[in-house]
Amino acid sequence: MNRLHRALDGLRERIDTPAPIVLADVMQDNIDRMQGFAAAHHLDVRPHVKTHKCVEIGRRQVEAGAAGITAGTVGEAEVFAAAGFGDIFLAYPVWPAGTKGLRIRRLAETTRLRVGVDNVAAIDALADAMGGEPGRLEVVVEVDCGARRSGAPPEFAGDLALAARKRGLVPVGVFTYPGHGSSGRDARERAARDQEAALATAVRGLGQAGITAEVVSAGSTPTVEFSTGDLITEIRPGEYVFGDLDNSRLGACTDDRIALFVAATVVSDWVPGQVILDAGTKALGREGSPERGYGAVLGTGAVLSKLNEYHGFLALPDGAARPRVGAVVPVVPNHVCPVVINFEELIVTDSAGTAPRRWPVDARGFLG
Amino acid sequence: MNRLHRALDGLRERIDTPAPIVLADVMQDNIDRMQGFAAAHHLDVRPHVKTHKCVEIGRRQVEAGAAGITAGTVGEAEVFAAAGFGDIFLAYPVWPAGTKGLRIRRLAETTRLRVGVDNVAAIDALADAMGGEPGRLEVVVEVDCGARRSGAPPEFAGDLALAARKRGLVPVGVFTYPGHGSSGRDARERAARDQEAALATAVRGLGQAGITAEVVSAGSTPTVEFSTGDLITEIRPGEYVFGDLDNSRLGACTDDRIALFVAATVVSDWVPGQVILDAGTKALGREGSPERGYGAVLGTGAVLSKLNEYHGFLALPDGAARPRVGAVVPVVPNHVCPVVINFEELIVTDSAGTAPRRWPVDARGFLG
Repeated sequence: MNRLHRALDGLRERIDTPAPIVLADVMQDNIDRMQGFAAAHHLDVRPHVKTHKCVEIGRRQVEAGAAGITAGTVGEAEVFAAAGFGDIFLAYPVWPAGTKGLRIRRLAETTRLRVGVDNVAAIDALADAMGGEPGRLEVVVEVDCGARRSGAPPEFAGDLALAARKRGLVPVGVFTYPGHGSSGRDARERAARDQEAALATAVRGLGQAGITAEVVSAGSTPTVEFSTGDLITEIRPGEYVFGDLDNSRLGACTDDRIALFVAATVVSDWVPGQVILDAGTKALGREGSPERGYGAVLGTGAVLSKLNEYHGFLALPDGAARPRVGAVVPVVPNHVCPVVINFEELIVTDSAGTAPRRWPVDARGFLG
Repeated sequence: MNRLHRALDGLRERIDTPAPIVLADVMQDNIDRMQGFAAAHHLDVRPHVKTHKCVEIGRRQVEAGAAGITAGTVGEAEVFAAAGFGDIFLAYPVWPAGTKGLRIRRLAETTRLRVGVDNVAAIDALADAMGGEPGRLEVVVEVDCGARRSGAPPEFAGDLALAARKRGLVPVGVFTYPGHGSSGRDARERAARDQEAALATAVRGLGQAGITAEVVSAGSTPTVEFSTGDLITEIRPGEYVFGDLDNSRLGACTDDRIALFVAATVVSDWVPGQVILDAGTKALGREGSPERGYGAVLGTGAVLSKLNEYHGFLALPDGAARPRVGAVVPVVPNHVCPVVINFEELIVTDSAGTAPRRWPVDARGFLG
């Protein structure tokens, strides 16, 4: 019986499924390891709260030594600022329409706030939104390093930083996201090299514009171990706090460091080689594919082969013990971030299955 | 300019994106059409609230003539019962562990409550949970008609109904879900035939056990139009209320009957042939595939080719007008149900874009 089953044993009849279970000891170990890695390489850790959206977990990251936090939406930043987090990087090329301009301005009055920019129109809109006090808002220029998502080509970073300074905003550095490094160790290492090259070009560009890049900010759980050059000042991993099957497949965590699973109940068992769980897309998201499945019960060979909204099709390996109707099984998700947001609260226990606490997923939703 | 763009025009600067926009006139038309179809075929409509999870919309369905509602979780049933809905079918093979047994018992005290069963263990557990009053709980036997999900083989329906009666529960009929009819008109029609055959076998089984099947309940938006035999007494469509691209592809709705889209803002535009929207998996779910995309802007040929959590990669067709950074575009999802649950509220307007109201997604979450 592995640690997930042991933790579940302590919870049976005390939880309603589906429910996300966090092993606090494993999570704390993940937090401490990341902090130790960063300290050894003279890097700040600025964890991305998109993964957990949970103030209690953010506090543990800061207590362990995080320099601040990273948010993905204005709403996330607001929730954490209201809970006392004083140093927030909204690492997103935010467009301040609707109420967002005013909300960013208010956030910047009480919090050290940095936001991402990758174009002049957004720089102008942000400066306008800040009214007479653009100097309260720090901006970090996003550059692309190969993910071909957001981010300017690195050679434009100097121009964008200059445009921000001209509008009275405070350009403090550059960031990028090596999202193309998600297909194995070699790809991760290559993406990290691309990241370093893009950041170096961007930093040079800022220098040529007479602007010092105090912040040179890198992603991401899968690439962190290769993000150790002298240039980089901070890393923004998110998923490391929980781990998941995707990170395990990439070699970015090991199965025994996975700290979150979804407790699900077998509700039907008529089809040979399969049982139906009460965890579908509304609990797990549709992260996966027919080939690699949509989540698994570690150590058993059982894989979710298909999901409907409230039904998970758990395919059992040949000859495996068949869990009875009513049994509760621990499902490890492929990608943990889209799981957490489906629940109001996390059930927090540890590997010994001691009495659970409940921590709210404070910034659940808050997409705008 | 189509109706989605017109509706958006009335909302600009009044909403923060990403946001789910409902066209109330189109939605009401969908509700009225379904009710008209059912009336013409002497069927009750028992809409599945999983699609909208919104009390205001459930009320409109009941006002239009729905016989009751269908829920997928105990929590959904509770939310709608608390809002005054008095006839609820929990069409799920629920396992009453944790607090669920007690919650079902309490619900059945104030609401006409039916729950699905497909095995004797669950029947026993439900009867136990009802304490001295199992007669308050109606059960409907779920049978499989080819989806190979939950549901007993139809020939076991009589035995299960009898087992329920022996425990004092009230067996009232049978239901099934023709979920294998999701690949085009022919597949939908075949699945509906399978459904009718399975239900007929199940009804015969109940009859042989001396139990009348008052309820013979059929799915689902894609198969409804073929679910018109004399045997069936009610239909449980959910998605018809909004429609989506998947239903449009199946021929189960037309594009002009799609009543929900997600307003998203262009936040970055550096990559040729592509812009980045602020709607990713946390707004849209990962419903789709690389081949058919993850959502589209109707009438433009622009398709979401990839999603990250907060980023949507909108691929533009050759020669298409390129929306500028800051532009708001209407994204129609592939599958609407996993979209609604990502938001606290729906922004409700109409095709003319008149002043928006906000309706809470009351049963958001409530997975257990």
